[in-house]
Amino acid sequence: MENFRNESDLLGTLPVPVNAYYGVQTQRAIDNFKISGQKLSSYPHLIRALAIVKKAAAKTNYELGLLEEPLYQKIAEVCDEILAGQFHEEFPIDMIQGGAGTSVNMNANEVIANRVLEKLGKEKGDYQYCSPNDHVNLSQSTNDAYPTSLKMALLSMNEELVEKLKKIVEAFRDKGKEFSSVIKMGRTQLQDAVPMSLGQEFEAFAATLEEDISKLNANANLFVEINMGATAIGTGLNAPVGYANLCAKNLAQLTGFSILSSPNLVEATPDTGSYVIYSSALKRLAVKLSKICNDLRLLSSGPRAGFFEINLPPMQPGSSIMPGKVNPVIPEVVNQVCYKVFGNDLTVTFAAEAGQLQLNVMEPVLSHAIMENINFLGNALDTLREKCIVGITANKDICLNMVRNSIGIVTALNPYIGYKNSTEIAKEALETGRSVYDLVLERGILSEERLNEILDPENMLKPHQPL
Amino acid sequence: MENFRNESDLLGTLPVPVNAYYGVQTQRAIDNFKISGQKLSSYPHLIRALAIVKKAAAKTNYELGLLEEPLYQKIAEVCDEILAGQFHEEFPIDMIQGGAGTSVNMNANEVIANRVLEKLGKEKGDYQYCSPNDHVNLSQSTNDAYPTSLKMALLSMNEELVEKLKKIVEAFRDKGKEFSSVIKMGRTQLQDAVPMSLGQEFEAFAATLEEDISKLNANANLFVEINMGATAIGTGLNAPVGYANLCAKNLAQLTGFSILSSPNLVEATPDTGSYVIYSSALKRLAVKLSKICNDLRLLSSGPRAGFFEINLPPMQPGSSIMPGKVNPVIPEVVNQVCYKVFGNDLTVTFAAEAGQLQLNVMEPVLSHAIMENINFLGNALDTLREKCIVGITANKDICLNMVRNSIGIVTALNPYIGYKNSTEIAKEALETGRSVYDLVLERGILSEERLNEILDPENMLKPHQPL
Amino acid sequence: MENFRNESDLLGTLPVPVNAYYGVQTQRAIDNFKISGQKLSSYPHLIRALAIVKKAAAKTNYELGLLEEPLYQKIAEVCDEILAGQFHEEFPIDMIQGGAGTSVNMNANEVIANRVLEKLGKEKGDYQYCSPNDHVNLSQSTNDAYPTSLKMALLSMNEELVEKLKKIVEAFRDKGKEFSSVIKMGRTQLQDAVPMSLGQEFEAFAATLEEDISKLNANANLFVEINMGATAIGTGLNAPVGYANLCAKNLAQLTGFSILSSPNLVEATPDTGSYVIYSSALKRLAVKLSKICNDLRLLSSGPRAGFFEINLPPMQPGSSIMPGKVNPVIPEVVNQVCYKVFGNDLTVTFAAEAGQLQLNVMEPVLSHAIMENINFLGNALDTLREKCIVGITANKDICLNMVRNSIGIVTALNPYIGYKNSTEIAKEALETGRSVYDLVLERGILSEERLNEILDPENMLKPHQPL
Amino acid sequence: MENFRNESDLLGTLPVPVNAYYGVQTQRAIDNFKISGQKLSSYPHLIRALAIVKKAAAKTNYELGLLEEPLYQKIAEVCDEILAGQFHEEFPIDMIQGGAGTSVNMNANEVIANRVLEKLGKEKGDYQYCSPNDHVNLSQSTNDAYPTSLKMALLSMNEELVEKLKKIVEAFRDKGKEFSSVIKMGRTQLQDAVPMSLGQEFEAFAATLEEDISKLNANANLFVEINMGATAIGTGLNAPVGYANLCAKNLAQLTGFSILSSPNLVEATPDTGSYVIYSSALKRLAVKLSKICNDLRLLSSGPRAGFFEINLPPMQPGSSIMPGKVNPVIPEVVNQVCYKVFGNDLTVTFAAEAGQLQLNVMEPVLSHAIMENINFLGNALDTLREKCIVGITANKDICLNMVRNSIGIVTALNPYIGYKNSTEIAKEALETGRSVYDLVLERGILSEERLNEILDPENMLKPHQPL
Repeated sequence: MENFRNESDLLGTLPVPVNAYYGVQTQRAIDNFKISGQKLSSYPHLIRALAIVKKAAAKTNYELGLLEEPLYQKIAEVCDEILAGQFHEEFPIDMIQGGAGTSVNMNANEVIANRVLEKLGKEKGDYQYCSPNDHVNLSQSTNDAYPTSLKMALLSMNEELVEKLKKIVEAFRDKGKEFSSVIKMGRTQLQDAVPMSLGQEFEAFAATLEEDISKLNANANLFVEINMGATAIGTGLNAPVGYANLCAKNLAQLTGFSILSSPNLVEATPDTGSYVIYSSALKRLAVKLSKICNDLRLLSSGPRAGFFEINLPPMQPGSSIMPGKVNPVIPEVVNQVCYKVFGNDLTVTFAAEAGQLQLNVMEPVLSHAIMENINFLGNALDTLREKCIVGITANKDICLNMVRNSIGIVTALNPYIGYKNSTEIAKEALETGRSVYDLVLERGILSEERLNEILDPENMLKPHQPL
Repeated sequence: MENFRNESDLLGTLPVPVNAYYGVQTQRAIDNFKISGQKLSSYPHLIRALAIVKKAAAKTNYELGLLEEPLYQKIAEVCDEILAGQFHEEFPIDMIQGGAGTSVNMNANEVIANRVLEKLGKEKGDYQYCSPNDHVNLSQSTNDAYPTSLKMALLSMNEELVEKLKKIVEAFRDKGKEFSSVIKMGRTQLQDAVPMSLGQEFEAFAATLEEDISKLNANANLFVEINMGATAIGTGLNAPVGYANLCAKNLAQLTGFSILSSPNLVEATPDTGSYVIYSSALKRLAVKLSKICNDLRLLSSGPRAGFFEINLPPMQPGSSIMPGKVNPVIPEVVNQVCYKVFGNDLTVTFAAEAGQLQLNVMEPVLSHAIMENINFLGNALDTLREKCIVGITANKDICLNMVRNSIGIVTALNPYIGYKNSTEIAKEALETGRSVYDLVLERGILSEERLNEILDPENMLKPHQPL
Repeated sequence: MENFRNESDLLGTLPVPVNAYYGVQTQRAIDNFKISGQKLSSYPHLIRALAIVKKAAAKTNYELGLLEEPLYQKIAEVCDEILAGQFHEEFPIDMIQGGAGTSVNMNANEVIANRVLEKLGKEKGDYQYCSPNDHVNLSQSTNDAYPTSLKMALLSMNEELVEKLKKIVEAFRDKGKEFSSVIKMGRTQLQDAVPMSLGQEFEAFAATLEEDISKLNANANLFVEINMGATAIGTGLNAPVGYANLCAKNLAQLTGFSILSSPNLVEATPDTGSYVIYSSALKRLAVKLSKICNDLRLLSSGPRAGFFEINLPPMQPGSSIMPGKVNPVIPEVVNQVCYKVFGNDLTVTFAAEAGQLQLNVMEPVLSHAIMENINFLGNALDTLREKCIVGITANKDICLNMVRNSIGIVTALNPYIGYKNSTEIAKEALETGRSVYDLVLERGILSEERLNEILDPENMLKPHQPL
Repeated sequence: MENFRNESDLLGTLPVPVNAYYGVQTQRAIDNFKISGQKLSSYPHLIRALAIVKKAAAKTNYELGLLEEPLYQKIAEVCDEILAGQFHEEFPIDMIQGGAGTSVNMNANEVIANRVLEKLGKEKGDYQYCSPNDHVNLSQSTNDAYPTSLKMALLSMNEELVEKLKKIVEAFRDKGKEFSSVIKMGRTQLQDAVPMSLGQEFEAFAATLEEDISKLNANANLFVEINMGATAIGTGLNAPVGYANLCAKNLAQLTGFSILSSPNLVEATPDTGSYVIYSSALKRLAVKLSKICNDLRLLSSGPRAGFFEINLPPMQPGSSIMPGKVNPVIPEVVNQVCYKVFGNDLTVTFAAEAGQLQLNVMEPVLSHAIMENINFLGNALDTLREKCIVGITANKDICLNMVRNSIGIVTALNPYIGYKNSTEIAKEALETGRSVYDLVLERGILSEERLNEILDPENMLKPHQPL
């Protein structure tokens, strides 16, 4: 076993790959958790967050006189290396593990300790000079360092997601302007309602998604409240007085986020409320996205036996058997992402509800579900914008013809002839197939000039001046 | 307090309405659980199930020599009265209670005991002659009598639901026959695909729902396995040898269901697996119903700016502002019932997962969720059938025109001219707005006669004979 | 049929009970929707909200010159009667209906119109003097008046819920103070961790619930944005210029809420984002409540074979077979309410996702699910507080003994003897059953005096001064 | 671009890596769907299933005279190569895609066609000799070949899962035997109930999981019903008469499963009922597993402040701060897998409900969610068995002491002294801390000999002989 070094812990001795920066506890976690095949290393925001939290913790220890300057400096250097993208492959643990994140925290502690040892010219595993527990994890517990790292990761992941969301809002808005003169029938309950412009429809897509920018940010902002200094259960045992606030201050400085120490660390430690509501905000975005994609698929249905008001850019042949068929594959994949988001949000609910007493041990799957949702939604937003929205075109004539043929325009007559008279005309139009316009003229209820004015679709797109 | 009598239990003395058949423990439950406002008495299947289980238990006790014949006879008589619909209002407890059903079981025990006392000429509450615990509950525990009652109730509720399901299957099937000659475009991914008949579409609705008749029955059939004789935790403490099997036999005789005693009563007592999978079967039915209602709303969309292949019977004016608008209100309400079913199924999952050690204390909400789903689905099925399906009519000409104009019929040419040639024709049709028929003729690929034969919609509804 | 009057609409004539204030469209809805058996009338907040919205709409119409003052005055008077609790039984429609709320809106329109007619000395149904559509619904559509009413109802329901939440927070806080000197073991992952006070544990319950006061209010506050003036699809067809803003202003004045008109009415009309996130906030509250109830059940487990740190007030005998058993029935029922909340939240997600084009037709089930959740949670909060929290007592000696016997206190030695040495002592204690205290003394690592100081449980409840 | 070859389709020409066996349509899908990062190639059961379906289809085409023998032979050879594990890396498409599986089906068609071309000595992409559409996909559509492949994959994945389930059932059963003489308190509602053996508890775990073997198999068995021959929408257009049944027969022969052609292919094509209920069966297994893991964590809680009836094998140090702490990390990770299963099951529900008209386009995410659940559950079962169950030991003395001290044993006195007398003794024991045994003797209700017999724990584990 010359390619291994031996390390030991509470349970005994275990060989670790000799070149690995991680140590015995990481090795145990690798062996214990073969579940999802998805490793920490594929979530770089989380790796970087662990590094920045460990750096802030070390700085705080140094400032409080618990850590000598040289060792603090080395720890900080190593954290910077990780922040720069190094050693991520040294985080091989499965995203879904037991132990409430202890393995993740120890993975970070071990990698940092061994890299520090290397810089000090010591052998890996020679922890007397830099111990994962006594030095890197000093004044910390998994139960504060791990959730704090999760929150830092989620804050930065949210920022990226919101950027993608902003871009698609703009794309919808541009289409709203482009389609402002395309008059079409609005539909409620899938039945013809009253006219609107296609531009109004796309602008509404922009507006509804735009609301979620602030909603996501507001809910992500709950993550700025952290529990460093809580140690095991929030009582702060083994953390010095003042640690919690100073560490929050240091972390704020390092991350640029307005990090705060929770006013009640015993409460904060098992609490998963911020995750629950942020996950809900992601779900809300997915609800809206799914509705929009359903609409896009409806509006582009056809080409001959559907609504066919718009054309989505063709992305691939739509059938292995039906030549010429092109399907709305991009909205379809976005719908599916939304269903995945709903599923993961339920996983979050179950995991959050399962907290017990002084800890919630289910945070690994909880955070994995949220991070998967952010990644999938981010990919979906970019895909939808680039491969669909920006290339949508309108079938202007088809849209206008449906307005002209519609019965729904009779609504505009209500203020002039009353709901009951309008109903009779609508009924006759429905039964005879004739147009509302002809029937009104025939009955001599309104002059042709007046009727033209009232039934001009353009006039139906907004409130009227009281007569 | 002359309108009250005093009863006492472990916790002390409590006044109970003097005429009430229920007693002190029911009174405590009334006071303790003011949650949903939905009472046991509004679930008559459950009240009757409690009576039949108590009757079977008494019969078994009598046959094993634990209960004197006269008292057994009286208990049985009272159970028969409840089965006949009497005393249901004496079950005023909220459907959602704590205590794992103890209050429900004691409510039944008390009502039966006091009615027996009345028949014996004794005062209500004079339990030395007939005790809720020592006589009516003899050889039982809540933990066997309550879930067994739930299962008996669900078995009979399922029977009624399946009857309603059978009726709607027939209604869809009748429409399938009625519409067998209406040729229309099939659609995949909301894009025009290839022709089919409207009859095939409605027959498919019948067929897909029909599958759920056996599926519901098969899963409900898990409820025949009961745990009477398990007493508190399945070990059978205080139940005599032989009780479990004899009680199952008696219950089978009384209910007509093939009741069996579970082979492992310790396992059976906390197990909620049968509820979970039966609830899933209800969910599956709801998934199908919701999809069908979505289809009905799509197919009837319009009248001028939608598919408009079918007409749903108008049930009410559709708008307070748009005259003449008629909406698919019946499918809409069925969709909503399905969403409620999905929600209640999740409640079942949470409740089932929350079982601990020797019991699942969450059975009240679990069973309430399932029973609400059965009731809502039953009402939805009848509503959908009576107020929608049977009155649907087809717009035959609209359907046929969409086939004639379609590009999708080019698919039928694949076997004759290849996928690649077909694709070119489809593309040209799409770009020029011309018909597939004209384009094929123009290119001289096939003779007119041959083309007519291949493109005859009727020929496209089924597999062809190899040439 | 002398007890009926005939009314007619688009679909024809229908008898309506002669004394009913509701009219033909309500009657159709009664007939069409026999689903849940839960009527509008059992949601008084909703009835009152309909009245206040109709009053605001009428006021706006009057101020814009569309409605004569006498008729406006009568409409306003009737709305005030409804606000005062009259005529609620005239809203007999099922909470779950198709038609996107049209029946609900028309129910309000009809009741108000007929009561106005009565006040005018006219016959019910003689709508030329006051028409449900032309007068009461003037400048409105279901698609603006209905969701606005829902939002007004939810705003006031939220206020009541938050009051109940505040009360239980105080109850937990009081217990936190009462138990501040009860020292006990904290537990993470159900394993003994480090000491804390029972007061800290209960104060944490208070703190975590307290956070949801502002969270609920912040999310409910999204309901202040309304779409009156949107009419059918948000384009404002048939509403006069200025209607939207003036109506919002009037509604603000009448309700006392800071009502605003949505900046984009086309977006606002089908949007259900506010419902989704408010429902999520309810879910978050349920997640926390469920976790707390799980903890209460764990902490009171026993009496002889469990943790038994606290006693819940006994509410009822716990078993029909096990004498003396008392169960945590109140936390149990609260858990079950939480599972119902999770289910209803899923119903909301499905309903919200099902919006199509210019409307979300699933709002009836969506709002029903939220209102049921508010009611159930409100009842659960009061029940939990009154019948459980305020009566909890502590088993102080049991708590302290578990600390004294624990191995977890070894954690406090880390800063003095290092993680590795502490681990060895812990291991030996675990294997031998001996106490940490004895083992440390035996090894002579620390003086007795020093050890006493470090291991004094009181010293472990908070951060230490750096040495 | 010399490392690319050009291929063309309906949308134009696209470069494809020159050595790739996949072609233009796969390339488009690679470009279009960058969503989850999880590729088809990581689901080998699916790749193999595609190969076996394509082989069966080719065989059927050959037997019906539609495909020449040499080409059929080559296609079959290539399918065998894929079945043997080759070319899996040629399936690089994201598991979550739009297009209802068209990309997946075309990926298989292209890989097979190009490998056939290679064997024929032709250039890749020279599809005149072997076309993905005209030859490999002959008589098929994505809408039959893709779901059929999914079903074949799920059938084999289920087989492997059931094997793992059988193994863990045996492991629990072995522990049941090992612990048959460990007497302990049973608990209901977390309160002490009556005695049982630890063996009964573990045997119940075995029994409850064992039920799911047949349940999983029965529901997976729905996958044997396939829709080959349905082509685009189930009408069988372009498939020859007899194709459906013959292909099912061939597939049965190749797979060893009892494959059947669906009696109604129009129904079968969009139907996802089998997926919904199979997913539910997985959920049921997860519900049970999660409950068991919760129990294991409760039973092993402590070591000094918990139940501590059993010891889970220590797998890793439990804390970065608390020395000696060992946590139940394996049950914890299994709980988390179960939450993931619940989430994915919800994804399945959403995806299934979203079927429209003649197809369900959401099958990619639907099948991905199920396959992920099977994989995660399989890993969880093996992990739980190997790293936890087989190493569990019992703390026999602790268990027995809790029985001796318990009040719950008073239950056994009911048949002899009545529920009311028993209640009084229980109450006194509770209030005084004295033992039931002493109190009964003191009151002289039963002789010591008789009492010893009744209260012998061994006698409480099963029904008694009637006296």
